[in-house]
Amino acid sequence: MKINYPDGQVFNSKPSQSPLSESSAKKKMIFGDRGMTLEEEINESNKYYRSHDIAVIYKKPTPIQIVKVDYPKRSRAVIREAYFRHASTTDYNGVYNGYYVDFEAKETKNKNIFPLKNFHQHQIDHLKMCQKQGGICFVIIKYVELKRYFVTPADEIFLHWDAQKNDGAKSIQLKDIVNSSIEIKSDYNPTLPYINAVQQLIESGKEKK
Amino acid sequence: MKINYPDGQVFNSKPSQSPLSESSAKKKMIFGDRGMTLEEEINESNKYYRSHDIAVIYKKPTPIQIVKVDYPKRSRAVIREAYFRHASTTDYNGVYNGYYVDFEAKETKNKNIFPLKNFHQHQIDHLKMCQKQGGICFVIIKYVELKRYFVTPADEIFLHWDAQKNDGAKSIQLKDIVNSSIEIKSDYNPTLPYINAVQQLIESGKEKK
Repeated sequence: MKINYPDGQVFNSKPSQSPLSESSAKKKMIFGDRGMTLEEEINESNKYYRSHDIAVIYKKPTPIQIVKVDYPKRSRAVIREAYFRHASTTDYNGVYNGYYVDFEAKETKNKNIFPLKNFHQHQIDHLKMCQKQGGICFVIIKYVELKRYFVTPADEIFLHWDAQKNDGAKSIQLKDIVNSSIEIKSDYNPTLPYINAVQQLIESGKEKK
Repeated sequence: MKINYPDGQVFNSKPSQSPLSESSAKKKMIFGDRGMTLEEEINESNKYYRSHDIAVIYKKPTPIQIVKVDYPKRSRAVIREAYFRHASTTDYNGVYNGYYVDFEAKETKNKNIFPLKNFHQHQIDHLKMCQKQGGICFVIIKYVELKRYFVTPADEIFLHWDAQKNDGAKSIQLKDIVNSSIEIKSDYNPTLPYINAVQQLIESGKEKK
């Protein structure tokens, strides 16, 4: 069963089951994961990375404000009134080879630009704080129509975000994303091999020092 | 409003408000946080660490399985049926000075032992995986009656957990916790200065290498 979140994300209420039907699993083997949302692709990749001892990264649960809970006899508690809350942090974090990894995943249907309204101030603040503590911080951007994926360093997002505050553009041009990011390709195992890009970010950071 | 979770944890539905009333805030200044739950003490400490650029550590939201959502007109979405799920990970993670930090917090009313049934297999598995990736992994144990707090390295927990699997004891003796852990004292700012202990864990790990 799928539920549309207020912000347009899709929530799968049985995340323990594979989100792929048999036929889409076949398609996947041939064409890659074109039918999956970015969130599903990252979750599948994280499962692969965990099972292969490559990285331990999870999506955080969506924060819920609970107002009313029933405790039926001989049955588990049922939440009867609750509301979606905005997260204080980014959606994903974890550990890779001794490094703290923190990122947000964003899809856009635009072909030439990435609108900055995809971010909230608190997500930018969180990424800045994590980077200050030595974390590897970035955004995975999926251009749905172009079928292109980028691992964009948080610094590039900060640059445009802060410029926007001073009457700069309200979006990032595709060419700026291409120039500043590491492009990754949808694949089979893992679905989205973004850890290769994380490794590159780490190495380029070392070179800077 | 407080809700009792099935596992006995207390959930505060308005976490953005201070859990302290004015009078308990006064008490806190004099006697430390004796009236707070361990979760509240850690959350307060994490707030302090974030605001002082010392560490960026959060409690993860409790995972909820959502079954039914109403979308009233001109009003925000209301969750009408949902269930508590078991987390796949520990409750807390984040970054401190370049290190990935991952831990679980446990209270016990026992005075001499710490029962291993406070853990689930998946939490142990998660801590082992994070440690393998170079994360700093531990448990904060609060002996409620003794008013003593310990930062216990994950290795000590693994030792007893694995022994239990081979017909070993189903709990850890207080003396073993004392010998293997770093004791911390409840304080004012931060409420529970556990990052000092994390720094010690990091330094003792370096000495081993």
